[in-house]
Amino acid sequence: MSIAKGKLYLVPAPLDFGCDEQAPLHDVIPRGTLEIAARLCYWICENAKSTRAYLKRIDELHPLSTPVQALHIQELPREVHKKGDHGPGFDASPLLDAALRGNDMGLVSEAGMPAIADPGASVVRAAHALGIAVVPLVGPSALLMALAASGLNGQEFAFVGYLPQDADARAQRIRALESTALKTGQTQMFIETPYRSEVLRRALLQSLQHNTRLAIASGLTLATAYIAS
Amino acid sequence: MSIAKGKLYLVPAPLDFGCDEQAPLHDVIPRGTLEIAARLCYWICENAKSTRAYLKRIDELHPLSTPVQALHIQELPREVHKKGDHGPGFDASPLLDAALRGNDMGLVSEAGMPAIADPGASVVRAAHALGIAVVPLVGPSALLMALAASGLNGQEFAFVGYLPQDADARAQRIRALESTALKTGQTQMFIETPYRSEVLRRALLQSLQHNTRLAIASGLTLATAYIAS
Repeated sequence: MSIAKGKLYLVPAPLDFGCDEQAPLHDVIPRGTLEIAARLCYWICENAKSTRAYLKRIDELHPLSTPVQALHIQELPREVHKKGDHGPGFDASPLLDAALRGNDMGLVSEAGMPAIADPGASVVRAAHALGIAVVPLVGPSALLMALAASGLNGQEFAFVGYLPQDADARAQRIRALESTALKTGQTQMFIETPYRSEVLRRALLQSLQHNTRLAIASGLTLATAYIAS
Repeated sequence: MSIAKGKLYLVPAPLDFGCDEQAPLHDVIPRGTLEIAARLCYWICENAKSTRAYLKRIDELHPLSTPVQALHIQELPREVHKKGDHGPGFDASPLLDAALRGNDMGLVSEAGMPAIADPGASVVRAAHALGIAVVPLVGPSALLMALAASGLNGQEFAFVGYLPQDADARAQRIRALESTALKTGQTQMFIETPYRSEVLRRALLQSLQHNTRLAIASGLTLATAYIAS
């Protein structure tokens, strides 16, 4: 007799990770997302400590079905955090054992939507390969909110991750992105960590042409998002 | 004496527009978004009738500060719905008069996040030009949920809108997008309306190379999202 497989829920997290002030969770995460998260016992995440902190915030609104200490929380290996896990080379299927045994699981990242500008794609890909249903839940995404609030082209856009740190390579990349944006109308989005964002801002103002539109969104998440079109 | 300007709130709508079954609003829209929407008296939208229907659903959870019949609802002109309003040529600033007079306003589209794969960018751009603060609220976005659930590269991706309807032009565009995806690793996302999605699916299976990954998400919104990487 075969056991029905569990589902993999993609659980968005608030964008106030690492911030001094945290918004009430109800304001930014729908009730439906909180209720599902509150009943999951098996988690895959970037960092178990911050996942527990998030689940404790959820517990205050929707009591968890299992105490935080008794939850099964697995971390994605460190090497996929920075480089990303969208390419081949990392097999996430062992992380999904609990789902194969019939348990629903949650995938969560430090802030925003897992697998978008964050690790998680390897887990989703493995779930598809194993025949585990993947259910994305609603929550905040810094990239989308920044794009909508920028007034730049939201009908055609690209997210290109981080720019190079070397000054010359960065200037060259900025000019290439500007060229694409001006030629095709496609908004080019990229991110930077807060402590390097001022350097990037100056590089953008120095490299970009006078009539290129630039929008800078900060404070939405750990990283600052920059958009040029 | 100058009056403090109102803010422009970007209000996401659920993705069940036009569907027979509608999810409870609480499950997909955070309380914070519903509470702000419930107190706004001035709206800019694609279609006044569906905006009223959405506001009636909100009213059942968070009573509106003003009866639906008494709200000020302005529609974006028809010509910007399809072509988009991200380019120059349409000046949305007259729509923002109420904000200049001190009233908070809401921008909403038929489904998902306004100004993303939907009209609204002209209003946001005009708000920035007029010094009106723009506040994006949290809610669903079909594109982002489809991308996260696809398992394709979410660290680098592009949204390119609709593909051409002409069969030859469409096949050519599919090959160009596939070439970009394979060369750069950047996921290519595009959408189609439900009644043309089967034709597109067949064209994709016919044109794409054997080892190109393709994800198809349907039912998230009016249009179907397709992703190749």
